Amino acid sequence: MLPLACIERIARKAGAERISKEALIELQKTIEIIAEELVKEISEVSRHAGRKTVKAEDVRLVAGKEV
Amino acid sequence: MLPLACIERIARKAGAERISKEALIELQKTIEIIAEELVKEISEVSRHAGRKTVKAEDVRLVAGKEV
Repeated sequence: MLPLACIERIARKAGAERISKEALIELQKTIEIIAEELVKEISEVSRHAGRKTVKAEDVRLVAGKEV
Repeated sequence: MLPLACIERIARKAGAERISKEALIELQKTIEIIAEELVKEISEVSRHAGRKTVKAEDVRLVAGKEV
């Protein structure tokens, strides 16, 4: 689980003035689901390149489309 | 910053067998950027509802479209 304190820091940095505890937990779950989907796609890219190890270039290839 | 250990755990859960340190750091940056964009959208929804406090329902409204 991603630490709630980190999630809260990201939320404040992104401009959320106040955020309820329940919202933080919901945000934590959402970010984890998004991160898992992202890693699934990145892992496919690594396998496609004939590797079992995920490298930074795989992350960049997928992130370049999404970020 | 989201802890690398947490990012690694999420990556393994999502099926990444091995992941380089550099890839983990790249993944950390990517997830933080995605999370910040998500929170910006959620904050707008809260303000649109006339609130300064982000509530779980705001997260669900935005996450429902993305997850």
